[in-house]
Amino acid sequence: MKADYIDHMGDDLRVVNAARVSFDKESDWATDENSPDGHGLPTGILKEEDARLISYLARNGHWTPFSHPMITMRETIPIFVARQRFKHMVGFTYNEVSRRYVDDTPEFFSPDVWRARPDASIKQGSGDRTIKEFVNPYGEPEHHPVEHWFDRWMEDAEFNYNKLLEWDVAPEQARMVLPQSMYTSYYVTGSLAAWARAYKQRIDSHAQKEIQDLAKQWDAIIQTLFPVSWAALTGQRPVGTGTI
Amino acid sequence: MKADYIDHMGDDLRVVNAARVSFDKESDWATDENSPDGHGLPTGILKEEDARLISYLARNGHWTPFSHPMITMRETIPIFVARQRFKHMVGFTYNEVSRRYVDDTPEFFSPDVWRARPDASIKQGSGDRTIKEFVNPYGEPEHHPVEHWFDRWMEDAEFNYNKLLEWDVAPEQARMVLPQSMYTSYYVTGSLAAWARAYKQRIDSHAQKEIQDLAKQWDAIIQTLFPVSWAALTGQRPVGTGTI
Amino acid sequence: MKADYIDHMGDDLRVVNAARVSFDKESDWATDENSPDGHGLPTGILKEEDARLISYLARNGHWTPFSHPMITMRETIPIFVARQRFKHMVGFTYNEVSRRYVDDTPEFFSPDVWRARPDASIKQGSGDRTIKEFVNPYGEPEHHPVEHWFDRWMEDAEFNYNKLLEWDVAPEQARMVLPQSMYTSYYVTGSLAAWARAYKQRIDSHAQKEIQDLAKQWDAIIQTLFPVSWAALTGQRPVGTGTI
Amino acid sequence: MKADYIDHMGDDLRVVNAARVSFDKESDWATDENSPDGHGLPTGILKEEDARLISYLARNGHWTPFSHPMITMRETIPIFVARQRFKHMVGFTYNEVSRRYVDDTPEFFSPDVWRARPDASIKQGSGDRTIKEFVNPYGEPEHHPVEHWFDRWMEDAEFNYNKLLEWDVAPEQARMVLPQSMYTSYYVTGSLAAWARAYKQRIDSHAQKEIQDLAKQWDAIIQTLFPVSWAALTGQRPVGTGTI
Repeated sequence: MKADYIDHMGDDLRVVNAARVSFDKESDWATDENSPDGHGLPTGILKEEDARLISYLARNGHWTPFSHPMITMRETIPIFVARQRFKHMVGFTYNEVSRRYVDDTPEFFSPDVWRARPDASIKQGSGDRTIKEFVNPYGEPEHHPVEHWFDRWMEDAEFNYNKLLEWDVAPEQARMVLPQSMYTSYYVTGSLAAWARAYKQRIDSHAQKEIQDLAKQWDAIIQTLFPVSWAALTGQRPVGTGTI
Repeated sequence: MKADYIDHMGDDLRVVNAARVSFDKESDWATDENSPDGHGLPTGILKEEDARLISYLARNGHWTPFSHPMITMRETIPIFVARQRFKHMVGFTYNEVSRRYVDDTPEFFSPDVWRARPDASIKQGSGDRTIKEFVNPYGEPEHHPVEHWFDRWMEDAEFNYNKLLEWDVAPEQARMVLPQSMYTSYYVTGSLAAWARAYKQRIDSHAQKEIQDLAKQWDAIIQTLFPVSWAALTGQRPVGTGTI
Repeated sequence: MKADYIDHMGDDLRVVNAARVSFDKESDWATDENSPDGHGLPTGILKEEDARLISYLARNGHWTPFSHPMITMRETIPIFVARQRFKHMVGFTYNEVSRRYVDDTPEFFSPDVWRARPDASIKQGSGDRTIKEFVNPYGEPEHHPVEHWFDRWMEDAEFNYNKLLEWDVAPEQARMVLPQSMYTSYYVTGSLAAWARAYKQRIDSHAQKEIQDLAKQWDAIIQTLFPVSWAALTGQRPVGTGTI
Repeated sequence: MKADYIDHMGDDLRVVNAARVSFDKESDWATDENSPDGHGLPTGILKEEDARLISYLARNGHWTPFSHPMITMRETIPIFVARQRFKHMVGFTYNEVSRRYVDDTPEFFSPDVWRARPDASIKQGSGDRTIKEFVNPYGEPEHHPVEHWFDRWMEDAEFNYNKLLEWDVAPEQARMVLPQSMYTSYYVTGSLAAWARAYKQRIDSHAQKEIQDLAKQWDAIIQTLFPVSWAALTGQRPVGTGTI
């Protein structure tokens, strides 16, 4: 799962000022009273009352001030994850590689760990257990065939896709033989509010492990751009801050 | 490609009245002056000036009156088509079968016609031509192997998916070996305006043939529910009307 | 504040089936085992497990199954309330009377109770107290002039608006002299999910009293249409049900 | 009507690359072959084929690549214009001064020109004519009373608003006596696509003159940020370009 930063607009102070406009007020960064010019330079750090305001807004579900900052990323993930990613995309916009036009050799996701089916009583999609050991007829554990087998299947998929192209089948039809482990890639833009909503949904322990991995990458990127807001929206402590 | 009618709300008169509210006016169906009660029963047919209003609204891009009527369908289409379908879903909401939870035998789409790659100069995804005949080493035409070959590939996919399940792999991971020709199914709800926008995009000759087939089914359903509005929005003549 | 029912689509069972499609399942109403035909008629009441499912969906923020049912209303409220109503209209669509085209005598909202400014420490817009008694120079309580005074101001507004029209000023400019207590009216359509979100925001004790009054009318209408879903989404007990 | 630039994200090249991702391609600015380093510096000007691509996208209604760039403005406009502005705000988000919390002396818009009611046959809200001259009983033209009269009415409104506050009426109720010419102010953020849609709707000759004035300010700001895209979306020639 790969999420690369492309661009962003705004900062924690933008959130504060979008909220303070209700009261027709405007705030500024805390100033450094020891700065050489004698009357304080902006520090890029929020005043304490502004950090508290952000915390109040997040706690009470006041989303709109968090809707002005924007973040664009480039994500590269397999189809079966992308299909979940694109559910409930309210507030996001994306542009994706299309295999109507592209017929390069596709790349496939291969899992590090094969997870076992969960107990029937559990609502999520997989349990904590990995699939059980493979034993030979003498009851001795052997290398599990799934990995070798999966790699072969992906090689066959590539071979067969290329076979169709060789037979002059249009790429838009040929792609249908490709497995859902195939990687796709897209630009995606959303507001800070939209990213926080998606993050909370996808980092949840009931979400599929592969999409949790994607969400962790969002977290690493966004917490450096909007430290106070992101912490408030996702219920984390802001990085490198003590008292808020 | 299958689209089944589930439910709808509103009719052509709703569109008229949502527009006439700007002028604080309300209209009604044309009445049948020959009705036995002597003063006219509503006919379920728009008055001529109301049909003209709808035509004016559509021509001038006044979308909001068409946003109150709603239509819900159940669609069953292959993944590679569904991924296009869900692009630009602004104004639609959907709920889909999830193979995190479902591990039934999957079904696969199989094309009637294999289309050839388009000429390089053409922007769409396939040309009008089908793939060229298959000839044996003696230069004699033979049955093209693609179909037999494709059916085998789908059988293998099913076999391998079941193999993974047998090895106790969680369905949410096992599904990644399934090809993108696999059918999925979902409820989808949108306003008349949203359906018209989607229809115009998907019935376009540059759209993939398979998604055009889906759009034709929308057309067949919606034109009976909103004959005047649908004709105005999609640039068709309404079914069974003469002069509008 | 007036909200009138116009139309709706769907019922509690629709929510259930939009959710159960994830598991490729479909449910039906509970049946009456004592029905004369001997094998049970649908009762229009959810099975217990379906009512529990709705409760689970609402509690866990799974909004999409609630996005298929739709409700259209006609609301008539003053401008200063409508401006709040239209904030955060995500998921709603509306068409409103326009005073660019309409120049009828406007109507004005007149409050039953004049509320006092809240204590400085309180975040909401008005306190529980009404404005204090009016006393004459002898310290005797007198009829508070605000009501008479307000009625006169509204009469003046109407007179002055008509004066502008008489002077041939275009209605689209003349309307700017009208006070924000002026009633406006519109059709508004949204999904059950959108209505529930709006309701919870507007019924909140921090919301302006006038918009709480509007929200109460939504409640009265929607709880009869979607008794189980509405109760689950708004944290109320469904009307006329015992055990859920 | 006032629109002030606050921030933006992206440029014309972002639009190009969001579109070229379909083909898994990426473009860059044209380079200056005469630059001193000998192999060309980026110029901040699009390559010709990229400018043509943007033109193609706009002409064919491919909106999504224009949905990644974002623009935030601060607008200050009267209520009767803001109410139109906020119609069809799909794709915009805003945060506004609230007179539940603010009770400063309000400011009012005063028109330079009083426009006459349009001919009955015309669909727009006002004609090209200004209101007719005012003549005294001797048939002599006199200074039209409307301006003096309007100024007085605004003074009265302010006086009466303050009277209500003095009587301890909560600002959230007191505001209802304020006329719709009162200025409001808000932050508003939308994608380049959303701004273009709004611009085309509001610059239209049928739109109210006051909102056309607002749209002109958007135009002045956005054409410098996204010269090629804005020209393509709005049907203008890009500023300072010759041949595109």
